[in-house]
Amino acid sequence: MPSSLEYTASRPNFSLTCPVIYDILLQKFCPADGAYLIQESKSKTIKTEPSVAAEVNRKIPLLQGANDPFSFVGDELKLVEENLVRAIRSREQELTDISGHLIYGGGKRVRPMVTLLAYAAFGGKHVADIVDIATAIELIHTATLLHDDIIDGADTRRGKESAFKKFGLKSTLVAGDFLFIKAFEFAGKFDETVVQWTADACTLLTEGEILQGHFNRNRSVTLDDYVEIVKRKTASLFHTGAKVGAYLAGASPALVDETERYGLNMGIAFQMVDDVLDVVGHPDLLGKPTGMDLRDGNPALPIILAMKNGDAAVCDAFDCRNPSEDQIGAALNAIKNGPAIQEAKALSKRYAEAALKSIKKLPPSLYRNGLKTLVQLIIDRDF
Amino acid sequence: MPSSLEYTASRPNFSLTCPVIYDILLQKFCPADGAYLIQESKSKTIKTEPSVAAEVNRKIPLLQGANDPFSFVGDELKLVEENLVRAIRSREQELTDISGHLIYGGGKRVRPMVTLLAYAAFGGKHVADIVDIATAIELIHTATLLHDDIIDGADTRRGKESAFKKFGLKSTLVAGDFLFIKAFEFAGKFDETVVQWTADACTLLTEGEILQGHFNRNRSVTLDDYVEIVKRKTASLFHTGAKVGAYLAGASPALVDETERYGLNMGIAFQMVDDVLDVVGHPDLLGKPTGMDLRDGNPALPIILAMKNGDAAVCDAFDCRNPSEDQIGAALNAIKNGPAIQEAKALSKRYAEAALKSIKKLPPSLYRNGLKTLVQLIIDRDF
Repeated sequence: MPSSLEYTASRPNFSLTCPVIYDILLQKFCPADGAYLIQESKSKTIKTEPSVAAEVNRKIPLLQGANDPFSFVGDELKLVEENLVRAIRSREQELTDISGHLIYGGGKRVRPMVTLLAYAAFGGKHVADIVDIATAIELIHTATLLHDDIIDGADTRRGKESAFKKFGLKSTLVAGDFLFIKAFEFAGKFDETVVQWTADACTLLTEGEILQGHFNRNRSVTLDDYVEIVKRKTASLFHTGAKVGAYLAGASPALVDETERYGLNMGIAFQMVDDVLDVVGHPDLLGKPTGMDLRDGNPALPIILAMKNGDAAVCDAFDCRNPSEDQIGAALNAIKNGPAIQEAKALSKRYAEAALKSIKKLPPSLYRNGLKTLVQLIIDRDF
Repeated sequence: MPSSLEYTASRPNFSLTCPVIYDILLQKFCPADGAYLIQESKSKTIKTEPSVAAEVNRKIPLLQGANDPFSFVGDELKLVEENLVRAIRSREQELTDISGHLIYGGGKRVRPMVTLLAYAAFGGKHVADIVDIATAIELIHTATLLHDDIIDGADTRRGKESAFKKFGLKSTLVAGDFLFIKAFEFAGKFDETVVQWTADACTLLTEGEILQGHFNRNRSVTLDDYVEIVKRKTASLFHTGAKVGAYLAGASPALVDETERYGLNMGIAFQMVDDVLDVVGHPDLLGKPTGMDLRDGNPALPIILAMKNGDAAVCDAFDCRNPSEDQIGAALNAIKNGPAIQEAKALSKRYAEAALKSIKKLPPSLYRNGLKTLVQLIIDRDF
């Protein structure tokens, strides 16, 4: 059993579009800056325990033979990358550096991918248009990550020092604003409907952040509160990307709604899996320590479910202002040993199934398959 | 000699549009929330030393007989206010509260006014359009104030506790994002040119903030550096508002450029006067203590000029991480007693004159007069 593994080598399906995008990276910006796409992050040599390596390998067969959603929109994703490179250029190098720290730092590009696939699934042909809105959506996502790291006081993000830690609060705050502005430069070119939807998604992000803040270390949080936070904070960019993709491709209003529902449900599933991984994931794969939600007092799904089950260790760690590492460890073990993880996984699968149900109503195509596989990838991912 | 005075009573020219806007305030939001327009802030009972009252009264005659720029676009400013009220509504009351704290908290609305007057000066007739972009510009300005207060750790803003102090870093940061988003909701409705110009102004704001950060407590700052910071941080929204106003009204490209130059130079003059007031202004009128630039280490004009003149007390206070109140007091006195204030005023007048020179090239109208008076008001203001 190897004590480390080359992840790409064992996941051939993932590497289809990688060389193209990697070439851009090599030409245009520091390739040593770490992973930036699902594919690329897979090419990292990750030192893992044998048990983790086995776990990783065990999951691979699920993807064998599946249609690779990356390959379907590889050319468009390349254009998104080029847009991102151009977007973050500034006469102030620090803004470019901070933006690049995150833009080239391991983003999965799932949101642009949903947008591009939804567009292609309805036969959209104006590549430049959809690439621009997909770029805007990724820029908005990145802007919120910069600001979220300030809000959470996060030390690490995607396996390396967070921008907040590396560049400080002031510059990181301004860089977040800068990325928001660049996003609107791309989104502002579209008609009023697209501008309004994009702005609505952003408004939801801020309202989600405030709602999450209300329930920080607050044991009164319910599952409904959680779903509302996730709809706003995570699913908003997924469902907006999906909806805009369908709309710009000329889908009927009913199918635009259906595609939006797909994005909404897959976005909720995505966040639920994120929350599960924060407990049971491997830090090397996640790019951050586990237990961050408990440390930050964020009302994440396994925490809420464990508290609902009356788990005292979790309750204590969650509403404690400065939980000790012992408290965190005890709470994480309690979550792992109780039913919360299975319950959370089951819940995430319900949302994933709802997303898949919407897909069935889309016209059959390779891109529809891509949207389907994306849900599967999201549910089965390790990071 | 009175020890306090009703400011409005002695400035009849200023109150022309006040009742209309004040009515909206009374109907729609807490009127006890303090001043929010130049006119309204004037109606506050300000307890001042007799010498300050005399100073205030002394300046009034300068405005007697001048055309009141507020009255020319009073109806449009009322619509901007209504837009602002609607814009900051959120399902999360905290976002509305934080936004309202600043929106209804003594803003002079100079940027919307420049935009509206420039539009009217070229015969623009689509009021709803220009009101929307004027709203966007005020929202962007307000968003940056929220984020600036975080960056500066400011305790007070416009005479009351800053949002940062009152609501905390996290919520204030998110509220700033919220206002940026609302701004783009308004600006995103326009053609690509207007969207691009608005985004460019915002980009300049962030690049100005970074450049200012480089020269924080940094004695190597030059007058050229200062002008570059001010062009980006303050003048950008003035010249963009002016340019967009002229453009949307259908002015020729040459006159759009001329109007932009007006905004640029008046914006620079505006900031220079701000910097002077930070030294010689009255805290009750300013709504904040004097000497804030020295405390924050901001490279403001009188500081730069005093350092250029070799003033040791100013140099020491400026590049000291935590200057004592004695150091601040000594530096402020040194600036007041030296030539820096007169030099700064002279410089601000040069930029004001450049702005007035541009105005002469605009077609004669009441609105052109309004733009002219605005420059005069900006130069002669006490807050």
